[in-house]
Amino acid sequence: MNTNAQHPAALTPKSKFRPLAVNQVRVGGFFGPRIDVIATKTAALLFDRCVEAGMLEQIDPDKPSPGIVIPYHPGGKVTTQMFWDSDLAKSIETAAYALYRQRDAALEARIDAVIDTYGRLQAEDGYLNSFFLRIEPGTRWANLRDQHELYDAGHMIEAAVAYYQATGKRKFLDMLCRYADLIDRTFGPNADQKHGYPGHPELELALIKLGRVTGEQRYLDLAKFFVDARGQEPHYFDQEAVARGEKPEDFHFKNYEYAQAHKPVREQREIVGHAVRAAYLYAGMADVATEFSDPSLDPALEAIWSHLTEKNLYVTGGFGPSKDNEGLTYDYDLPNATAYAETCASVALVFWASRMLGRAPDARFADVMERALYNGALTGISEDGTHFFYDNPLESRGAHHRWRWHFCPCCPPNIARLVTSIGTYFYGVAEDEVAVHLYCENDAELEVAGTRLNLGLTTRYPDDGSIALTLDPERPVDFTLSLRVPGWAKGFSLAINGEPLVAQPENGYLRIRRQWNAGDRVALELTMEAELLYAHPKVAPDQGRAAILRGPFVYCVEETDNTAALNSYVIKDGVRMTPSDIDGLPGAVGLSLDALFESQPAEGLYAESPPERRPASLKAIPYYLWDNRAPGEMLVWLRREP
Amino acid sequence: MNTNAQHPAALTPKSKFRPLAVNQVRVGGFFGPRIDVIATKTAALLFDRCVEAGMLEQIDPDKPSPGIVIPYHPGGKVTTQMFWDSDLAKSIETAAYALYRQRDAALEARIDAVIDTYGRLQAEDGYLNSFFLRIEPGTRWANLRDQHELYDAGHMIEAAVAYYQATGKRKFLDMLCRYADLIDRTFGPNADQKHGYPGHPELELALIKLGRVTGEQRYLDLAKFFVDARGQEPHYFDQEAVARGEKPEDFHFKNYEYAQAHKPVREQREIVGHAVRAAYLYAGMADVATEFSDPSLDPALEAIWSHLTEKNLYVTGGFGPSKDNEGLTYDYDLPNATAYAETCASVALVFWASRMLGRAPDARFADVMERALYNGALTGISEDGTHFFYDNPLESRGAHHRWRWHFCPCCPPNIARLVTSIGTYFYGVAEDEVAVHLYCENDAELEVAGTRLNLGLTTRYPDDGSIALTLDPERPVDFTLSLRVPGWAKGFSLAINGEPLVAQPENGYLRIRRQWNAGDRVALELTMEAELLYAHPKVAPDQGRAAILRGPFVYCVEETDNTAALNSYVIKDGVRMTPSDIDGLPGAVGLSLDALFESQPAEGLYAESPPERRPASLKAIPYYLWDNRAPGEMLVWLRREP
Repeated sequence: MNTNAQHPAALTPKSKFRPLAVNQVRVGGFFGPRIDVIATKTAALLFDRCVEAGMLEQIDPDKPSPGIVIPYHPGGKVTTQMFWDSDLAKSIETAAYALYRQRDAALEARIDAVIDTYGRLQAEDGYLNSFFLRIEPGTRWANLRDQHELYDAGHMIEAAVAYYQATGKRKFLDMLCRYADLIDRTFGPNADQKHGYPGHPELELALIKLGRVTGEQRYLDLAKFFVDARGQEPHYFDQEAVARGEKPEDFHFKNYEYAQAHKPVREQREIVGHAVRAAYLYAGMADVATEFSDPSLDPALEAIWSHLTEKNLYVTGGFGPSKDNEGLTYDYDLPNATAYAETCASVALVFWASRMLGRAPDARFADVMERALYNGALTGISEDGTHFFYDNPLESRGAHHRWRWHFCPCCPPNIARLVTSIGTYFYGVAEDEVAVHLYCENDAELEVAGTRLNLGLTTRYPDDGSIALTLDPERPVDFTLSLRVPGWAKGFSLAINGEPLVAQPENGYLRIRRQWNAGDRVALELTMEAELLYAHPKVAPDQGRAAILRGPFVYCVEETDNTAALNSYVIKDGVRMTPSDIDGLPGAVGLSLDALFESQPAEGLYAESPPERRPASLKAIPYYLWDNRAPGEMLVWLRREP
Repeated sequence: MNTNAQHPAALTPKSKFRPLAVNQVRVGGFFGPRIDVIATKTAALLFDRCVEAGMLEQIDPDKPSPGIVIPYHPGGKVTTQMFWDSDLAKSIETAAYALYRQRDAALEARIDAVIDTYGRLQAEDGYLNSFFLRIEPGTRWANLRDQHELYDAGHMIEAAVAYYQATGKRKFLDMLCRYADLIDRTFGPNADQKHGYPGHPELELALIKLGRVTGEQRYLDLAKFFVDARGQEPHYFDQEAVARGEKPEDFHFKNYEYAQAHKPVREQREIVGHAVRAAYLYAGMADVATEFSDPSLDPALEAIWSHLTEKNLYVTGGFGPSKDNEGLTYDYDLPNATAYAETCASVALVFWASRMLGRAPDARFADVMERALYNGALTGISEDGTHFFYDNPLESRGAHHRWRWHFCPCCPPNIARLVTSIGTYFYGVAEDEVAVHLYCENDAELEVAGTRLNLGLTTRYPDDGSIALTLDPERPVDFTLSLRVPGWAKGFSLAINGEPLVAQPENGYLRIRRQWNAGDRVALELTMEAELLYAHPKVAPDQGRAAILRGPFVYCVEETDNTAALNSYVIKDGVRMTPSDIDGLPGAVGLSLDALFESQPAEGLYAESPPERRPASLKAIPYYLWDNRAPGEMLVWLRREP
């Protein structure tokens, strides 16, 4: 295990749960092979496709500027070059985690070359954005609302932190610190500074990472400034529009809800606008709340969280139903076949939820994190690591498939970096508490209550609910071990060193405070049974339907295991569901269940007689696995009757 | 009854069923009051809104050109000015029918003024298009694919024919004949002519009307040329794109299926592309097939008709589910909440279906015409004649309402002109046959077998199925009276002069050949009962659902008569449906039926227990009447169980 870069200086240690660095957790179990696929295949492939898109021409100051490259796209002629830095950065971040997993000299050399190119590109004053240095020079900081400039900076910072942690090399991190210092000088509350903030949030959470890894308080302060400044009047986006000679009211999305800048963040109570922007912002807000122990953000964060999870979240942990704004529309608007539910939005929800755990374990957040991770996010990448979903409907007529690449390639590296860094989401570590949020086989090295602790977790989760932990502190130590009891678990049992322990979850966590000694063993048994879920009556498309849940997985039915049309099947409430193998997907847990199959006599498009019914059986598979075999229909919400 | 303009010279009289002119049918019954609303209110209102939009500035050569006017629209910045001539023309056409209904000096003066303005605008050579004369001069005939130039000409011709028939005034008709003559000189098969054709079909059917009213064969020939030339290689749209300096492959809609020009029309077998273009084209093709007794068009027309009605038609007679291309997507793609199903498409389907009846009575066509008319088309206008639907979903969460006006105002005058001219769709008259396609109280004056015939039809249809006809030929005459037995009728009985007559429908029509004498009475009794319809298994969103049909009307449930959420109701197959009054919509027939109402205990967005059920009742109303009262949810396809 590479320990060069771990254990950054803790800034304010008390009551702040922070994630472990990727190099502190060696992941096996469910995610291990998935990380390996990405490390050995996807990481290099992401670079290949960035190169194919022409990104290296854009960033290289020694080559002629490619100018605006407009790919053909049915939605109109747009360029995504303004966020190419972020796509490259997320690819570097993925590769960094891949290198930590498995050192690969060729991949490392490619990254170093890109970093060197960025090094040559970086301006004297530290500015580092290829679009504004090479494609549209002279328009720096002119349109924060639309142009993704600060968003790019955030992703590059995250990449630099990851590469530093994975390899111990400081060059990229130092470059990004210089850029962050420029941003810190440029933006801020003083009269001689710009009072702007990212149109697409992301930089906020990146600055928190940068502050944590460097120990520099000013990066945390800058994150807080961006959070505090957002949506204040006079409105910065109005001012910069006027400065550009534009009318603020000509903004394509009409009002600043699109970017969650319609009012100061502390006054916001509902999730609105572009889904990814929203979750990145709230993640940054939650980080700020943690690092500054700032309860003034809580009413907004809590209300927005509730508004998402109680009225606007797909059962898969996806959100943002509309393609038009890539985001939210109105409460309970959760169409299935046309769900946008961008992969990046579920990834971002994992980010946000994980940061809501910054001050205390709370299963409200961890349950949603898990649901989004195993479903809405994980479906974004094919099992072989080569193809990617951008939008994620819950029903398909058979024409929806993962892309080799997308003209707006934000999702592929986003899901790839999430999976390769998944170990950092397993634990939250405070001064004298270790919370286990997600269960997956792993070995972790951390420090709690001033004591080094090796923690080994063995489990087949999420295929079953048996979890075994071994704790090896370097010396006996008092701290609280908090174990999440997922909301889906119908029961649980706990034992320490073989002795049953009766405990009640507190906010969904069993909080075990005791002296821990080397070799202590904790066994947690979670009752995992397949069950049906029913949607609120206001979710119109799901009425008369049920979704299948088993553990963290939402299930779907696919044409390849069944008979089309999938909407011809009806299941009965209380149907028995039996775990079974899945053809072509070894190791995954399918479910078999009885159903009725309706068929219509051939009477044309609209018949006067009702369909006939015959007994049939259905095979369901975890949603994230769909479209890995023969193409065809897919359905999450099955027709049901009492 | 104004008879100045009726009975144009019959060009080729035998076996060609032609519609009556609007001034040959005096409409009462169901449509009478609707025509009156449009005549006394909507006709003037359409003008008002055209004026508000600035159309009169565009067409007036004595005013400064307004240039491109770009209204704000969430879909982007586009101008609809290129088809403003068509909007004004359809408003004139509506007003013409209104004047026939009820002479109105003020309205007539407004139309005359517009016609005078167009008279001043018309170029020396006959060219008459305000966009290309005033807004983008010098680009005449440069982009038939996109620019609606010939489409505008078609609508102006239709307006001129209508105004001539209604008022006997020839000025507008003569102007349009000059324009048609220019088009006839410009386009054609000769080497010195352009081989192009309308990107948006419409002119074809208009030229047939013009040929019929003027007796000029060359207009029919020109219509045939446009039909024959369409989609031939080398492709005209490619050639004109190259001539403009564009790449043909940059066409926004990728291929010419959008405009049904992807192959010669006789080779086409499926309905594709933009819905309104499609139906206008096929209407023109059917007209050509009739006028030229050309069976070579039949395989295409028959196959396309089947492809629409067997795989792509909403139960309401709407089609074209997608907003993206305002048209077709793939077979059985009939989403309800997001149905585009433009009002104009249903109107165009009435046009097309009526023309499919040009060579023989066939209930396949008349049934669809009726369904589209009473549902997908008629819903396009509010009961008070002031607000208009553009797109027509079959399910609404409550936010879909008729517009006061639309930035693309094609639908309001289209439904208005259809309703005010509805009498022309009732009958098809051939040399020795009169077919009755639609039943509505009316008095008609026509000529059959060389004999003038007054025909009186009394009925409460579509509220009930009793129909009484009185025939008054000027002398005893042999001809066939063909009476449609609608596909929905579960039974029928026929009597002539009180004597029961046993007859079997032939292609859905009772064809009664005999000598008819003055005062002959025919009584047709159609069994009209409410019934449920079930959609083909491949129509995914409608599985587990049923639609209610009674006579020509598809029914829906509205929140105002029931309790939201409407998807919480379940009906049983075979449910008894009882006619009942509708609150706030006197005279219309509602239906009351038993149902079950499901409610979920308040457990958040996704509950683990199935909903509870209680007995309830539902009130359904004809679909076309929805959104005339309190706003709220609406649903056509109700959840059902055996």
